[in-house]
Amino acid sequence: MKLSEIAQFLSCRLVGSDCDISGINTLEEAKEGELTFLTNPRYQKFIETTKASAILIDKIPERSNKTFLLSDNPYLALAKLAAKLFKIERPSFKNHAAYTGEDCTIADSVDIYPTVYIGSRVNIGSNTVLYPGVVIDDGVEIGDDCVIYPNVSIMRQCRIDNRVIIHAGTVIGSDGYGYALDKAGNHIKIPQIGIVKIESDVEIGSNVSIDRAAFGQTLIGRGTKIDNLVQIAHNVKMGEKCLIISQVGISGSSTLGNNVILAGQVGVAGHIRIDSNVQIGAKSGIHKSLKAGQYSGVPTMNHKDWLKLQAAKKKLPSLLERMKLLEEELLEIKGKTV
Amino acid sequence: MKLSEIAQFLSCRLVGSDCDISGINTLEEAKEGELTFLTNPRYQKFIETTKASAILIDKIPERSNKTFLLSDNPYLALAKLAAKLFKIERPSFKNHAAYTGEDCTIADSVDIYPTVYIGSRVNIGSNTVLYPGVVIDDGVEIGDDCVIYPNVSIMRQCRIDNRVIIHAGTVIGSDGYGYALDKAGNHIKIPQIGIVKIESDVEIGSNVSIDRAAFGQTLIGRGTKIDNLVQIAHNVKMGEKCLIISQVGISGSSTLGNNVILAGQVGVAGHIRIDSNVQIGAKSGIHKSLKAGQYSGVPTMNHKDWLKLQAAKKKLPSLLERMKLLEEELLEIKGKTV
Amino acid sequence: MKLSEIAQFLSCRLVGSDCDISGINTLEEAKEGELTFLTNPRYQKFIETTKASAILIDKIPERSNKTFLLSDNPYLALAKLAAKLFKIERPSFKNHAAYTGEDCTIADSVDIYPTVYIGSRVNIGSNTVLYPGVVIDDGVEIGDDCVIYPNVSIMRQCRIDNRVIIHAGTVIGSDGYGYALDKAGNHIKIPQIGIVKIESDVEIGSNVSIDRAAFGQTLIGRGTKIDNLVQIAHNVKMGEKCLIISQVGISGSSTLGNNVILAGQVGVAGHIRIDSNVQIGAKSGIHKSLKAGQYSGVPTMNHKDWLKLQAAKKKLPSLLERMKLLEEELLEIKGKTV
Repeated sequence: MKLSEIAQFLSCRLVGSDCDISGINTLEEAKEGELTFLTNPRYQKFIETTKASAILIDKIPERSNKTFLLSDNPYLALAKLAAKLFKIERPSFKNHAAYTGEDCTIADSVDIYPTVYIGSRVNIGSNTVLYPGVVIDDGVEIGDDCVIYPNVSIMRQCRIDNRVIIHAGTVIGSDGYGYALDKAGNHIKIPQIGIVKIESDVEIGSNVSIDRAAFGQTLIGRGTKIDNLVQIAHNVKMGEKCLIISQVGISGSSTLGNNVILAGQVGVAGHIRIDSNVQIGAKSGIHKSLKAGQYSGVPTMNHKDWLKLQAAKKKLPSLLERMKLLEEELLEIKGKTV
Repeated sequence: MKLSEIAQFLSCRLVGSDCDISGINTLEEAKEGELTFLTNPRYQKFIETTKASAILIDKIPERSNKTFLLSDNPYLALAKLAAKLFKIERPSFKNHAAYTGEDCTIADSVDIYPTVYIGSRVNIGSNTVLYPGVVIDDGVEIGDDCVIYPNVSIMRQCRIDNRVIIHAGTVIGSDGYGYALDKAGNHIKIPQIGIVKIESDVEIGSNVSIDRAAFGQTLIGRGTKIDNLVQIAHNVKMGEKCLIISQVGISGSSTLGNNVILAGQVGVAGHIRIDSNVQIGAKSGIHKSLKAGQYSGVPTMNHKDWLKLQAAKKKLPSLLERMKLLEEELLEIKGKTV
Repeated sequence: MKLSEIAQFLSCRLVGSDCDISGINTLEEAKEGELTFLTNPRYQKFIETTKASAILIDKIPERSNKTFLLSDNPYLALAKLAAKLFKIERPSFKNHAAYTGEDCTIADSVDIYPTVYIGSRVNIGSNTVLYPGVVIDDGVEIGDDCVIYPNVSIMRQCRIDNRVIIHAGTVIGSDGYGYALDKAGNHIKIPQIGIVKIESDVEIGSNVSIDRAAFGQTLIGRGTKIDNLVQIAHNVKMGEKCLIISQVGISGSSTLGNNVILAGQVGVAGHIRIDSNVQIGAKSGIHKSLKAGQYSGVPTMNHKDWLKLQAAKKKLPSLLERMKLLEEELLEIKGKTV
């Protein structure tokens, strides 16, 4: 594709000379003929040394002889361009399931790879793809245009809306962790009879666990994006457009509003409420309900307070020495003033 | 089912009028005709607003016109009732395995879904269920009344007793992480030739990893319950009735007594001993052996000390300011007293 | 095998009397007739009470009547011996795949268990083993002598060199977590069109997630060993002989040098550089680039400083009391000196 055609497709301004573009790559790894992008100022230093033939950028650096595509939102432009250039070519399998149960309604346009298992009373909408090793248990409903990657397990009755992507090894609808203690000190299982409901435009990473509700439903709201190895316990309700980064764990019955961001390895206690627009720093531990704002730490505090605390913590060993000195001096003064 | 019949089944007192009960649900999500429950005082506020027709509870609030089922242990009553009302209906598959090796002993009552793989010299007891995609490697022994959910892998020679539940995507008996360093700085693999032994009444969540012993066995004691995404390294010995919450990691050769509780995202160092009845707060890091008691923090300390430390930590930035002031004042005083 | 033959095989000195050796086991679990080993001084106390018939060790304790095999590097000797004694006997399956696509090149010596799925344009080298439930997507290349355990998913175009071991449930090449925000506040997926490249002699634990690059490749360097439940995000570049312990998470585009050690549950922020020979303590959070050295804490600091800080932290509650006392005394003195 010509660079000028790309500029036209993205409604970007081309600054420099036209050329053929063979692919997209990072500033450091791009070869001649490839288009690259600057979406993180950290990589500014590679602009002059990149071998790429053109750079998608939002502001052209002074005194550069490079060729640029100028865009208000280079990252969004990149998403558009990559989606246009790289279509994954998949074979068309139709229903090659190893087993399909009774009373299923599966659209003709669904692709079902070999070694897939489909139980009874399953509904699957148009253009959905089930990769090999996927297990769809009885009574599951999946909407249109979903992609379910290899070895995903979706347990009985769970409901998945449209354009949902679930990556390999993820489990939807395993039993929640609920036990009642009897007098003998044994843990008696609470049957987990609810479901998981996943709304449209959700993407879920690989090896994620989302437990079914004890009663009612565990809910993942529209447009929320969940990274790999995340734990979502029973009866969690998550709002729309949340970003849940890798290895986060959310305990039972907690509620998240919309646009909540939990950075990597955050832990959320059970039965708490996190309001819309809360943002939590990596590795934080949330033990109580939070209003909109930024928080960090274990337990979480206001993010600015946490930054101050980090600075103060470093001074703690020297503080101890200063304290000792002060106490000695005071003792000396008290000797003099008595 | 009539509410009065439920009361009789649970040996509970019915306070209010009889009605038909169509299901069980949470206080917030219950509809008319459903039974709900109060097992966490946090939800007391929903008692008057719930749409449920009756509430399972241990103490009837004053001045309420609601209908109640009164129980000493509502959570245990709930477990009993749910187990009675909701039997999962599964098709009966008998042995539909994609492959079964030689010299296996599999009870007639075992349900084996399609796409299951069973190796050679495998023994499986009565009424056990293997869901689709389960892989049972050579020489594995599984007892009676177990449920092995989809895409679980149980590696060679591992032994599983009776009434064990293993949720989807979990791996039992992957190799432990053991390497010897040679003179050239290469890590030479220690063959992991032990097994995993799982005793009766254990439940294991989804996407859990339990490594086989280097030599001897990794042991999960009777009645222990393990949540999702937990890591249990080689040669760990875990006692009875432990509760291991999601995303906990236990390093190699560490030993847990009975009734140990590890809250979410706790990490346990290798080669240490955690005595019976130890309870650890979420996100803690245990780096040395612990006697019975409650602990928190990284590294763990007595839980009460940790609470004090959290309170003190918040005062650290102001402490620094107070210190500076004190030093200035002292300097001033020293000037005067000299 | 005779103990004297083992001594000869390992070039070790036998101190004590010869006997028949039936197996290898730990000091605590070994039975008569078994060989045991001391590779961690913590277990020294079990030397006199072990039932093992001989002990592999690097220094013979004074006044012991036990039988020893003396070795400079007992752990390495153990690796050698175990590898000689315990060959896992597997059936030979040749290509029993449930499905194999077009234009594949698969060596005759490859073992492919039943229920494996292999896409199109896949290359697999000599002696590689694919366990049941493995999914190999289109265009994947796997070298010689690899072992891919059950229910592993390797997504399109990923490349795996020789002697790579991947344990059950692991996912190679799931999509990286990348979204551009549009004006309406929706997260638009950046198509992840790069690959994962895994060099020779890498071992990867169970239930690990390694994301494909957005563009270019995610790279795991030669001889690196990755434990269970680890998250490796898109475009991470990892050097040679790194040790990545369980439940570590490494964010996008970060780079590790050679011989980096990340202990359990460490988190690494995105877009940073960790130099060769960096060692990080368990549960640490790395938020900026690091030079060779040892670090701990959230955020990480020099490990020695972190140890000092831990000691100081414990004194913080008493420090507050001392501060209060000091302020009162100073107030009293000021009263006197005025």
